[in-house]
Amino acid sequence: MALTRTKDRVLAADLPAHKNERVLVEGWVHAIRKFGAVNFLILRDRSGMAQVILEPDQMQRLEGMQAETVVRVTGTVDEEERAAHGVEVRNADVEVLTPVTDVLPFEINKRVLKPSLDVFLNHAPVGLRYPSKQATFRLYSDLLRGFGEYLRARDFTEIHTPKIFGSATESGANVFVLDYFGKTGYLTQSPQLYKQIMVGVFERVYEIGPAFRAEEHYTARHLNEFNSLDAEMGFIDGVDQVLDLLIGVLEHMVTAMAERRPADLEALKVRLPVFGDVPRISFREAQQIILDEHGESRFHEPDFSPQDERWVSQWALREHGTDFCFVTHFPTVKRAFYTMPDPEDPEHSFGFDLLFRGQELVSGAQRIHNHAQLVETMQNRGMSLEPFEGYLEAFKFGLPPHGGFAIGSERLLMRLLEADNIRETTLFPRDVNRLIP
Amino acid sequence: MALTRTKDRVLAADLPAHKNERVLVEGWVHAIRKFGAVNFLILRDRSGMAQVILEPDQMQRLEGMQAETVVRVTGTVDEEERAAHGVEVRNADVEVLTPVTDVLPFEINKRVLKPSLDVFLNHAPVGLRYPSKQATFRLYSDLLRGFGEYLRARDFTEIHTPKIFGSATESGANVFVLDYFGKTGYLTQSPQLYKQIMVGVFERVYEIGPAFRAEEHYTARHLNEFNSLDAEMGFIDGVDQVLDLLIGVLEHMVTAMAERRPADLEALKVRLPVFGDVPRISFREAQQIILDEHGESRFHEPDFSPQDERWVSQWALREHGTDFCFVTHFPTVKRAFYTMPDPEDPEHSFGFDLLFRGQELVSGAQRIHNHAQLVETMQNRGMSLEPFEGYLEAFKFGLPPHGGFAIGSERLLMRLLEADNIRETTLFPRDVNRLIP
Repeated sequence: MALTRTKDRVLAADLPAHKNERVLVEGWVHAIRKFGAVNFLILRDRSGMAQVILEPDQMQRLEGMQAETVVRVTGTVDEEERAAHGVEVRNADVEVLTPVTDVLPFEINKRVLKPSLDVFLNHAPVGLRYPSKQATFRLYSDLLRGFGEYLRARDFTEIHTPKIFGSATESGANVFVLDYFGKTGYLTQSPQLYKQIMVGVFERVYEIGPAFRAEEHYTARHLNEFNSLDAEMGFIDGVDQVLDLLIGVLEHMVTAMAERRPADLEALKVRLPVFGDVPRISFREAQQIILDEHGESRFHEPDFSPQDERWVSQWALREHGTDFCFVTHFPTVKRAFYTMPDPEDPEHSFGFDLLFRGQELVSGAQRIHNHAQLVETMQNRGMSLEPFEGYLEAFKFGLPPHGGFAIGSERLLMRLLEADNIRETTLFPRDVNRLIP
Repeated sequence: MALTRTKDRVLAADLPAHKNERVLVEGWVHAIRKFGAVNFLILRDRSGMAQVILEPDQMQRLEGMQAETVVRVTGTVDEEERAAHGVEVRNADVEVLTPVTDVLPFEINKRVLKPSLDVFLNHAPVGLRYPSKQATFRLYSDLLRGFGEYLRARDFTEIHTPKIFGSATESGANVFVLDYFGKTGYLTQSPQLYKQIMVGVFERVYEIGPAFRAEEHYTARHLNEFNSLDAEMGFIDGVDQVLDLLIGVLEHMVTAMAERRPADLEALKVRLPVFGDVPRISFREAQQIILDEHGESRFHEPDFSPQDERWVSQWALREHGTDFCFVTHFPTVKRAFYTMPDPEDPEHSFGFDLLFRGQELVSGAQRIHNHAQLVETMQNRGMSLEPFEGYLEAFKFGLPPHGGFAIGSERLLMRLLEADNIRETTLFPRDVNRLIP
C-alpha cells in the first residue's frame, strides 16, 4: 500500500534519477557551508546527503537556525560533479519544519567524531545521528535480519519466551531481582531453558531478545543487558550439526549484510571475515598444537588463556586460511550443567567454542537430552531440582538429541567492526554505572 | 550449507515423495493404536503425523514405553489411503532414542485437549506439543515474520532498545522496580521514548521486544509481560500515513501467514478478517453514528464504552464491508502526553484506535515533534522533565513530524484466533499469580 502524501518526497540518494525536475526533499540541516559568493546547505536524510545551493533570501530565512534543523526543500535537480551523487539542488525554496536554536553538545557533521565515549553515550539521542554511527546500526539491523532469514529457511520457528522468571535458576549473585506483586521475580540470564523446552514442541527454534546479567564487571566487552540470538535444534546426530548450523548462519548474516550495505561497509572500512572451510579440533588437539608450535604445555589447564586463543586462531589462518576455528570437547567441569559429556570420554564434553580472529566469539553445545542423566548431573553438581520443575518436565516426556548456541549480537557487531568497546556497537548500553539514556 | 548427517531423515509430510523406498523417520510416539491383528504407531514430528505399522516384535520393543517416547523408525513407505498423507510405513524397525516411562499429566493425542487453562499452563512444557497448540504458535511466528518483512521493504530499520531504565518515566505504580547495583532500575513499559529518539537517526524504525506492566489486573486480555510490535515513522504529512502503514502491515501479516500455513489455519478454523477499504472516522463522527443508529447520545463521553466499539464496528461492516474501522481524533486529555493535539481543535488529538470486530485492537498517533510544544504539554500535565532528559534532547535537536503505533502481538493472535483468553495465545504467560513455568 502506498503511503498517502500531498506531494512525493525524493530521497537524497534518488536525486540523480530526477535531473532537471523540480523535487521536494526533506531532512536535517547537516551543515551550512558559507563561501561568500555561493552558500550550500548539506541536507541529510535516511539515504544520505544532498547538496542544496542557498540563495541569499534563503540564507536569511535560516538565520539563527542551528545544525539539525529539520527542513523541507523544493528545488531543481542539476548536475554537479563535485557534489554527492553527482547532482545538487538549485533555485531552492527552504521551509523549516522543526526549528533548532540550541548548539549540539558536539559536532556531528565533521569527519571525526571527537567526544570521549562517555560524553558520546550521555548524548547518544543525538550522537547516533552521526553518519558512521548510523552505518553501524544499519549493519546491525541487517545482521539480525540474516539470522532470522537463514533459520526460517531451515524450518526454525521464532519464539518469544518470558524475561521475568519465578525462581533463580542460575547463581543468585548474577541475577537481577525484582518485586513481583509481593513475590520475588528474576530477570532471565538467557532463554536457554525455554528454548530446550521448545525443542520438544517445534524441534527447531530461535529467539531474538534481551538477556540480563547482574555481573559487576567493568570491561570493554561486557554489558549487563544485551540482545541475544539464540537457536536450538533437535534430532541431531551429533554436535557437528550444531557447528554446521552456527557457521552457516554466521556466514549468511555477514554475506547478506555485505550485499545489502556496500556503502556502509565502505564507510566503516569493514574488513570482512574469511570463512572458508573452518577446522574443527578438540580442546586437546588445540593444546597439542600450542605445544608443538610454541613449546608450552597446556595439558593441565581446564580452559584457554587469551594467548592460547590467539595461537589457535593463528594456526587456523595459516593452515586453513580462515578467520574462524571451532574447538570442541571442552572439559565437562567448565561447562554448564546441561552440556552433554562425551560418552567415550566423560571428562570432556560436546561443548564447543567458535574462535574468531584470536578470541572466542560464540559458545554452544550438544545438550543432555536424557531425563535420568540430566537429573543425576544436576544432583552431582549439588543443584536443587525444584526451581527447574518445568524444564525437567520437558525431559521427562521425551526430548530428542539436541544442541544449540547463543550469539551476543552487540559483541558480534563489535568484533566484525573491530571496535574497541562494546559500548560503541550498542545503541543505549547498560553497565554498572550507566542506566540512562 | 547442508547439515552433516549419517543418514537422511525424512519428515512425515514428505513421505509421499518416497513411495516404495526405505526411509528413516524420527519423532515422538504420539499414540499407539492396538487393534489386535494390526497395531499402529502414530509418529509425530515437526511436519505432522506418520502412521507406522508395528510388527509383534516391534510392539514388544515398545513395551512399557509411554506416549512422547522419542523414536527413530526405519521402514518402507507404502500407499495407504486411510492414513495421513495417503501413505504409511511398513516393515518398520523402531529404535528408542529417548525413553519415556511416566504418564503425561493430561492426554495430548486426543481430539480435544481436556485440562482447565490453569492445569494446562502448569504443564505448558509438554502441553504445547498438542497439535493445535503447535499450530497456534507457528501462526504466531509467521505474524512476527510478516511484521518485519513489510517494514524492512519500506526502509524501516530494526532496533533493540534497553528494557532496564534509570528513571520511572511513567506512573510509578505500574512499573516493575529492580535493584541495579544499589541503584533503582525500572523495566520499560514500552519502547515509545526510544523509538521516537531513533526517528531522529533512521526516520523509520521498528522493534520487536518485551514490554512490562506492573498492573494488578485479573482479566482475560491483560498480561504483565508481552511482546510488543512497535513502529515509528518520520517525515509524515499527517496521521493518515500512520493509518496507511498500520493497516498495510496488518494486512500483510495476516495474508502472508495465511499463505504460508493453510493447514494450521484449517486446523484452527481461523476466520480470516476482511480488510477491504477501512473507513476512517473521527471520534465525534463515531458518536454521531451511535446517536443516529441507536438513539443514544455519547457526546459528553471522553472515550468509548465496549458497547460503543461494537456499534461502530457493526456500522463499518454494514456500510463498508470490513472487519476494521479507524477512529481518529480522540479527546486529547485521554491520550498520552506525547500525542499531537489537532491544531484546529486542540481538545481533540491525532491519536487513533483501530477497531477490529467490535473491540479496539491497536492504538497509535501522530506525536508532538516540536520541543517547545512538548515541554509545555508536559509542564501543563504536571510532569517532571528531569527523567526525560535524553528523550527531550532528541527533540531539542530536531525531530520531524512523526507517528507510530504498538501492536500487542499475543493480543493480536488472540483476536485473530477468537480465543477466549490471552493466556491461550502466549507461550508462557506472566500474570499476577503466574511466574512459572
